[in-house]
Amino acid sequence: MCQLLGMNCATPTDITFSFTGFAARGGETDHHADGFGIAFYENRGSRCFLDNAPCCQSPVAELIKHYPIKSRNVIAHIRKATQGALELENCHPFVRELWGRHWLFAHNGDLKSFDPTLRGDYLPIGQTDSERAFCVMMEGLKARFGSREPDDQALFTAVAEMTSDLTRHGVFNFLLSNGHCLLAHCSTSLFYIVRAWPFQIAHLVDTDVSVDFSRVNARGDCVSVITTRPLTDNETWTPLQTGELMMFVDGRPQSSQRIEIPQDVQRSNQENLACI
Amino acid sequence: MCQLLGMNCATPTDITFSFTGFAARGGETDHHADGFGIAFYENRGSRCFLDNAPCCQSPVAELIKHYPIKSRNVIAHIRKATQGALELENCHPFVRELWGRHWLFAHNGDLKSFDPTLRGDYLPIGQTDSERAFCVMMEGLKARFGSREPDDQALFTAVAEMTSDLTRHGVFNFLLSNGHCLLAHCSTSLFYIVRAWPFQIAHLVDTDVSVDFSRVNARGDCVSVITTRPLTDNETWTPLQTGELMMFVDGRPQSSQRIEIPQDVQRSNQENLACI
Repeated sequence: MCQLLGMNCATPTDITFSFTGFAARGGETDHHADGFGIAFYENRGSRCFLDNAPCCQSPVAELIKHYPIKSRNVIAHIRKATQGALELENCHPFVRELWGRHWLFAHNGDLKSFDPTLRGDYLPIGQTDSERAFCVMMEGLKARFGSREPDDQALFTAVAEMTSDLTRHGVFNFLLSNGHCLLAHCSTSLFYIVRAWPFQIAHLVDTDVSVDFSRVNARGDCVSVITTRPLTDNETWTPLQTGELMMFVDGRPQSSQRIEIPQDVQRSNQENLACI
Repeated sequence: MCQLLGMNCATPTDITFSFTGFAARGGETDHHADGFGIAFYENRGSRCFLDNAPCCQSPVAELIKHYPIKSRNVIAHIRKATQGALELENCHPFVRELWGRHWLFAHNGDLKSFDPTLRGDYLPIGQTDSERAFCVMMEGLKARFGSREPDDQALFTAVAEMTSDLTRHGVFNFLLSNGHCLLAHCSTSLFYIVRAWPFQIAHLVDTDVSVDFSRVNARGDCVSVITTRPLTDNETWTPLQTGELMMFVDGRPQSSQRIEIPQDVQRSNQENLACI
């Protein structure tokens, strides 16, 4: 499968430290070498850097490690292909526009026999189950709210409802953002940490790099980092529970709900995990 | 205003040579220093590299100059802001999805008093006249053809009709692509060249760099490059005529039509040019 990395912050923050550890898993310390992507929101805009080269070797990843882009919401993904060829069109995060905002989505999982009928507002460009699921969610948001953008709580409720349907098809860990909030859903594995004042030193698992966050952050800064497996070995990461959907706003968890995953799907997900 | 660079090819081709000359105009040999963007189609996928730093200094532009991405359709833009702040959301090219394809658009010009009513299928994220015009065109394509993707000729006719309306608002040089064909419209300045067998040596205007295309291209290769001002000083570039819309497919012009621009708009466009 794949691995996910997300960041949601109170103030624009650069992700180079976390991305350095994460990128090593793209073919160096782990086998997720089938392409990668990282997308940054900057004010209302966003930019998404993609490459179908292994992340640990990609010149694009090298740029990101050394170019500190300050962002309040970031989603990154390293790919171990389960569905869809090793083409750029199958690299996450995927991007669509709704209500004059970019929406970004990345998925770690495998949705089986998933061939939804789409209305046509949002159609997949590549061949992945992931992009199909994203199109279903974007279409669902548009169908529910029309031209009126919902507030955070209504958005959270809508995403929870759609996740409840989608998660029946298999493993569905995902990150979704509209540039304001970041939604994270855990089918099998997702952890988060909130870094706030007084900041500490952090040390990466995947490469021998440390940073003293107290030297680079101010009192009002607050950062949540969400990832498939903890990135540091000297901090306490909190696991999301199986089925948990969490919404992060301004660098902190704001809402959380446990979505029931049917027992047979849970068993199948565990078997799926055992295979990879 | 801004400058445009487009490439349409029979076979995947890298644009590093042309982009090297073009990038120098982003603050070095010319004053287009308010951000830049370059987008590449690769099979069905696309990736867009944006930066709001001057192109001649941007680490992202540096990456592109040294990372030969092979693509059959490329659109690049260096910005000299006329409308909209120096933010990432106002950097071209803009991207939207229609019929399961990415569509890319970049504009050089200035549409005055342009405040279209949009249905909501495509809404602007930034504040530029350019993105509003792109949303009008995407909405227009969807309204005309519904869920049935048109063939090249029907697409060309539809874009010509919409251009005829939009061009009344002012200077509207643009490049538009769906990854298969590239459409170029000239309000005030756009040139193209077709490079094919037997290939020649080309020498850039903006920096002392030459390339012998006969050494890097094969017999079946064919490349059209379209740009605001010729990039080389030893080749013959063909100017598009005022009002001309041209569609490139497989590296060659396929269709062309002169769209009438009202006399008063033409006069105003010329005055506009004289000011900048």
